[in-house]
Order: sequence, then C-alpha cells, then structure tokens
Amino acid sequence: MSERLAQQIRFIIEVDKLKEIFRQTLCTQSRRPENDAEHSWHLCLVVIVLAEHANAPGLDVLRVLKLLILHDLVEIDAGDTFAYDTARMVDQHAREMRAADRIFGLLPADQAVEFRALWDEFEARATPEARFAAAMDRFQPMLLNCLTEGASWRRHGVTHDRVLARNAPVADGSRALWEYAVRMIQETVDAGHLAPAPPAS
Amino acid sequence: MSERLAQQIRFIIEVDKLKEIFRQTLCTQSRRPENDAEHSWHLCLVVIVLAEHANAPGLDVLRVLKLLILHDLVEIDAGDTFAYDTARMVDQHAREMRAADRIFGLLPADQAVEFRALWDEFEARATPEARFAAAMDRFQPMLLNCLTEGASWRRHGVTHDRVLARNAPVADGSRALWEYAVRMIQETVDAGHLAPAPPAS
Repeated sequence: MSERLAQQIRFIIEVDKLKEIFRQTLCTQSRRPENDAEHSWHLCLVVIVLAEHANAPGLDVLRVLKLLILHDLVEIDAGDTFAYDTARMVDQHAREMRAADRIFGLLPADQAVEFRALWDEFEARATPEARFAAAMDRFQPMLLNCLTEGASWRRHGVTHDRVLARNAPVADGSRALWEYAVRMIQETVDAGHLAPAPPAS
Repeated sequence: MSERLAQQIRFIIEVDKLKEIFRQTLCTQSRRPENDAEHSWHLCLVVIVLAEHANAPGLDVLRVLKLLILHDLVEIDAGDTFAYDTARMVDQHAREMRAADRIFGLLPADQAVEFRALWDEFEARATPEARFAAAMDRFQPMLLNCLTEGASWRRHGVTHDRVLARNAPVADGSRALWEYAVRMIQETVDAGHLAPAPPAS
C-alpha cells in the first residue's frame, strides 16, 4: 500500500470524530442536539436545493460543497463555539487555526495545502462561494431553531435583535434567503418563542 | 414568498428526518450506531479525499457528491436495510421506489425530476460517477466495521466470504481501494474480529 493512501485513510478515520461534536441546535424530530457531521450533510443538501438563490450568478457549486464538507473539522480539536457566546469567541480563531494545522496536516502535502486553502477561504468570506457557504451555515441553524420553538435561543436568553445582528451576513450570500429568514424569525417572535429586543436603556 | 421557495424549504425540513435513521455500523469513538446523515457527510468527505483512486479518469466529482448527498433519503420512509439481510432485501427496491416518489415529489417539478434522476442513476450503477459513489458507500462502512472490531458483522454472524462477496463491487469504482479493502478485511479476520468462511458442506 502506498504511503499516500495510508495518509488519506488516517485522515478519513480521524474526521470520524466530527460525529461526536454536538451543537446547540436541536434536530427537529427527536429534539436531541445535532452534531457537526449531520449539520455538514444538511448544509450540502441545502446548497444543491437553494444554490439558485445565491446573489452571485454562476456559483461554483462543487467548491461550495467542498467548503462545507470541511468547514467544521477544526471543531474536532477546538470544540463547537456557540454563535452567541462572545466570551468563548475571543480565542476561537486561535484555537481553530491550531486545529487546522494538525488535522489538515494528516493529509499528503498537496491535499493538506488544498484543503487548508479551502478552510481559509471559508473563514475569509471573500469569494462568492465562501459567502454563500457561510450564509447557509447561518440559515440552516436558524431554520432548525424556528422549527424547535426557538429552543437554543431561549435556553441562552438570546433576543430578537441579537438573532438579526448575528445572521445579517446571510444577505451577503443570498438576499432572497435573508428576506425569508427575517420573516421566519418575526413569526417565531410573534409565537412567543423568541424574546423581543430589550427596551433601550 | 414564492411557492417555489416554500416547496424547497419543505423538502429541506422533511429530510431532517435522515438524522434519525440509524444504521448497523458503529461510530469509531462513542461506538453508538451511525445515522444516515452522518454517513452521507462522511461519504462526501471520502470522495473529495479519494477521487484520484477512481478507475475512471476525469470523474465529475460534483455529480458524485450530489448522488451521495441524496442516496439515502429514501430510507426516511423505507428504513435502513442491513446489507446482509437477504430477507428484507426482497422488497427493498419497491419500498424505496415509493419513498422516492413521495420525498422527491416535495420539490418544485424541475428539481423533483433532476433529483429523482440522480437517485435512479445511483441505483443503476451504470455511470462512472454512480459506480464510484456506490463503491464509497461500501468502502466506508467496511472501514468503520474494521475499526470497531467487526462489531456489526459479529453481531449478525456475517463471515469473511460474505463480506468479500457483498463488497466486491467496490472494484467497479476503484480497483486500488478494493485491494486496500481486501487486505484490511484479511487483517480483521487474522485479529479474530471476523469469522472465516464456513467449511464447504
């Protein structure tokens, strides 16, 4: 067996750990926390269904899928950082950079460079593909949250204004899906499942 | 909101159920059963790592990924049929055809046709993309089984000869990965985690 294939298999085995990284979002049926592997698959499916709503015409869908297949692997080492946990977000990037060095470093050198570049592209949000991928990475958890009576928002005391502020970058990837999301979030507020913004002090 | 987008979102919500379809294969870390959503993500990752080992040059990787993102959705209605359960495999195709009608039928008409054609392509194994996708759909469970001391094989009394016969189509997608698998399975037999073939009667 070639050393190249052995390295590739070691990487494939290592990333099996993504199935054990649990998120704040709940699955709609069993109401248990979703894990990063399921989330990554759901994002890929969302992309092939909704790519036509991207702001950018002629999106490279293959690259969007690669970005999303890989985007959460760093959480194997760095853990999931809840989107509204500003304290833990302080050192999130440094933790994730170390994780990327280790995990992508398991691959043969050429693939380590290629996959690391894809992860860096996702993080930088500077290409149409990365902006659409990042938009889906915010849209899908919002959708699941709205379908589970705002469970993870209520649990952490997150209010309407913070949901809108956190997720506004969805519009950078798809204005149509951001419009949809704003309405969906308003319905969740109206149903009493997401607290309105606190009065200005 | 357009009716088209509403249909797309209903499909995206419906397929969240894939996270509750559990397989015989165990995850390597927690040793709990893997579900179809995690499995589908892992296959996508395996494809972008191992596509270079496909028999067919110039594989359309985007189509391979679409085939795999969608390939297990029918199990939302039809359930997971264990690969060695010959009794339940009798009506598997009929159950899955009905499921495909219902689930892909949730989409706007053009996407329903497109996605159903992708599922039919995966099932028919007649294109290089479908053969490679199907090969990965057999390779990944073998890998996880070997890493969990042959747990699902031992649990169901599956022997070495049946594992080889069931998985031989891996070679139609990738001779290199089938060679790797044959060695890996032999090591699992040698370690006492997979029973040898019974003596000929």
